[in-house]
Parts: sequence; structure tokens; C-alpha cells
Amino acid sequence: MSNISIIGSGNVAWALAQRLHEKNCKIHQVCARDPELGQELSKAVDSEYVKETGLLDPEVGIIIIAVSDDAIREVAKDIPNTKALVIHCSGSTPLAALPQKNRAVIWPLRSIARGQEMTWSDMNLVLEADTDIASIKALDLAQTLGSKAVKMDSKERKTAHLVAVILNNFSNHLLHMSDVLCAEQGMDRRIFQDLMEHTLHYSGKAIDSQTGPAARKDKEVMQRQMNLLNDHPHFQEVYRVISNSIMTEDNDDEL
Amino acid sequence: MSNISIIGSGNVAWALAQRLHEKNCKIHQVCARDPELGQELSKAVDSEYVKETGLLDPEVGIIIIAVSDDAIREVAKDIPNTKALVIHCSGSTPLAALPQKNRAVIWPLRSIARGQEMTWSDMNLVLEADTDIASIKALDLAQTLGSKAVKMDSKERKTAHLVAVILNNFSNHLLHMSDVLCAEQGMDRRIFQDLMEHTLHYSGKAIDSQTGPAARKDKEVMQRQMNLLNDHPHFQEVYRVISNSIMTEDNDDEL
Repeated sequence: MSNISIIGSGNVAWALAQRLHEKNCKIHQVCARDPELGQELSKAVDSEYVKETGLLDPEVGIIIIAVSDDAIREVAKDIPNTKALVIHCSGSTPLAALPQKNRAVIWPLRSIARGQEMTWSDMNLVLEADTDIASIKALDLAQTLGSKAVKMDSKERKTAHLVAVILNNFSNHLLHMSDVLCAEQGMDRRIFQDLMEHTLHYSGKAIDSQTGPAARKDKEVMQRQMNLLNDHPHFQEVYRVISNSIMTEDNDDEL
Repeated sequence: MSNISIIGSGNVAWALAQRLHEKNCKIHQVCARDPELGQELSKAVDSEYVKETGLLDPEVGIIIIAVSDDAIREVAKDIPNTKALVIHCSGSTPLAALPQKNRAVIWPLRSIARGQEMTWSDMNLVLEADTDIASIKALDLAQTLGSKAVKMDSKERKTAHLVAVILNNFSNHLLHMSDVLCAEQGMDRRIFQDLMEHTLHYSGKAIDSQTGPAARKDKEVMQRQMNLLNDHPHFQEVYRVISNSIMTEDNDDEL
């Protein structure tokens, strides 16, 4: 594996740098605006710290940009002229956000949050590249990380990002709503763990296992449950709109 | 365990009758409007079939009403005068829907759909009763089924039912939305399985692991993803309202 430099000191930067270090890849430089976090990470993976993107050594095999989505374009512009493969890790950012010719996306299909144990072998990495060389190098990196690679083009990745937002961020919000309601009632949310796992593991088409008040168009129960949410008008809106969407998949009934 | 009669021939009636039969409980009668399904079930569990509720033998220990929620009241009224413990299995129906004095609710905290393999030991059964005798008998039944019993009063059960709708029915609708989007793009939804499992298994407060465009108030990405849903206006509404709800948990930003 080529020498690798990493830009960023957030969760994704830490996860990638540590994993690559464990896998005996040489992390050449860590570049981060925050000197404290940047130095901490560079020390942890036995590499050099630089503060400015312009100070990155261009003579390296791969440069990974692991910064927040809205900073990717600016950071990429500031990288010195290089033959390195430049990679960003964002689901929502186009490949073309990178001005380099030798470019790729490696997007971990998982929400990487602090304190979570990383299990790389189960993780899918979505790969996008517009040249064969970049594609092969990105695939090589995914293999080094020990994750499954899923190649996509830009159009597919857009859909995949939308699906990831729905399945990860939106599901998590439903968990949060449940946290709030259980806490108000002094109930332990864990009693619903089995129900959640069952929802998830049913392997057929989701619509075939849809049950509940909306699926059977039971407006009385729906209204009663909406009333329980009177203190949380935005949760009430979520209830109303998802119920409508479930009913709409059958016909145009409105709640 | 007392002799048990079961009213109904749907998924829950089948699941309960078969489980109790396996556990060497005597299923005395199966009562169902549909003679074909009713006879099939009564044969499977080695019991007598009756068509009308009024024909049920009152000299039995337990009568389980496993019919659709909106039929419970009517069915319960038609049961001949009995000392049996009368049980319904609905999350959304009050205990008081049963006119009998000896009454209880045993509500399986799982969506029991056709073709799913039943794992009783992981399942929580929510129990509600308003006398000690009914409570003890219901607990005994839960133990015979081999499931975990969770006692609740009516108020707690209302919240639990709302949470179950949110976690099971609404999560399932998010899975369905993903099914539709993946199918349109010719993508395999299973590549998101790891992401879903990760969302679910994170053990802390859900709000602490909330990520994504809404959590970081990235309106550009949210608008782009809404545009991808132009062909599905009700999915677009779900996207808008959940994103707003995620943002509202921080402040009153509106999409």
C-alpha cells in the first residue's frame, strides 16, 4: 500500500487513520486546522502533523480528505499540485468537488460516531472513481481496510445517500421519539428492542409485512395516538405524515 | 395449565394456538367465522371447531380473543356467561372492552405476520389485568408460552402502543421507501443492512448519535434529496417532516 496522508481530525479521520496504521500502512502526514486534535491523531498513528493543507507533501500515494462535507471543496483546492490519488469520504458530495484528475470517493456506508466500536469487515464502502487507475487504487484501499467495496456511479450514489439518510438518520429519529415518550412514562425503551430487531430482520419486501393502525386505516386509533403527542407538535406531524404515506401506498385516503 | 379456547383464525390465533398445543396445553375449542380456516386450525391443534361465539363452552379456564381490533368488543359480548379468564391480544384496545369481570390483556410486543418464524423466548408480552387472580393467571399463560412478561397499566400500555407503532410500523415504512428507491435504481437494499443494524444497536440515547443533513442543518443537501423524491410526493412529505422534526429538537429551523 502507498504512503497515505489524511486531512481532518474528526471521527472519520480518526477511524481511517487508526485502521490503516493497524494494517501497517504508513500514515505520512496528518493535516488538521485544530493543532491539538491534529497533533493527538498524528502522534497516535506515528506520523507528521501539518496545520495548513498547502504544507502537505505532494509526493505521497494517497491523500484522504476526511473533513465535514461543506469544507471538502475548499480543502481540495488548497492541496499542492500532486499525482497522488485524492479521496473524499462524503456520501452527498460529488466526485467533481475534487479538482484533481486522480480522484475517488470512498464513502463508509455507516454513521461513524464517537465511542462506537468499529467493525470493519461488516461495513460496505461505496467507491466512485472516473478512471480505471483511480478505481483500482480505491479498491485496493478498501481491501486494506478489510471492508466490502460497492462500486457506484454518481447517480447511484445520490440514491444510495438518500436511502442512507432514510434508513439511518430517519430511523434514528424514530428511536429518539421513542426515547422521549418512554422517558416521560418512566418506561425502559429496551423492552422494544426485540420488536425493532424483528422489523429489521424480516427479509421480504417491507410492504408485505406492514401492519398497524395506518395499514388497516383505523382512523380512531390514529386520532387517539395523535392526541397523545399533543405536547410534541413536530412528533405529531411525523405521525400524521408517515401514517398518510402508509395509507397512500394503498389509496389516497388522508388523515 | 387450564383448558383454553381460542376465538379467531388469523396470524395471532394460529401462532398462539400452535404454541400452546406444542406446550401440551389442551385447546378445547377454536371459534372462527370462516369455517375453512377455523376447521384447519382446530384440526392442527387437535380441538373442536365452533362457528358462533355463542356456542363456546363456558366451562373452560381461559378464552383468548385473537380477532382484529375492531371486532373485539362485539365478540366479547357474545361469549356465553363464564367464569373463564377472558383475554384479548390487542395493544390499542382498552381492557374495559371486555365486559367479563375476569379479564386480561396479553399483547405480544411484535408484529406477527404470516411466514415469519416465531421465536417466543425473545418476545415481550405486555400484560394488563385489574384483579390479582387475572394477573396471576395471565402471568402463568405468558410463562407457558415461554415469553417475557411486562406488566403495564392502561396508561402505560397506551404509550407502549404508540412507541410500537413508531418503532415497528413507521420504521417498516422507511424500509418500504428504501425498497422503492432501490428498485428504481436497480440497487440491492441489502447493502444497507449493516447500516440499519448499526443504527439499531447503538445502545446510548438516540439523539447522541443523530447525524446527517438535517442534524447539521445542511439545507442544500436536504433540498437536493427532496428533489430526488419528486415522483413520490408522499415520500417527499415524510422527508420534509422528519427533517424538520430532527432540526426542531435543536431549534425552530424550518425546511
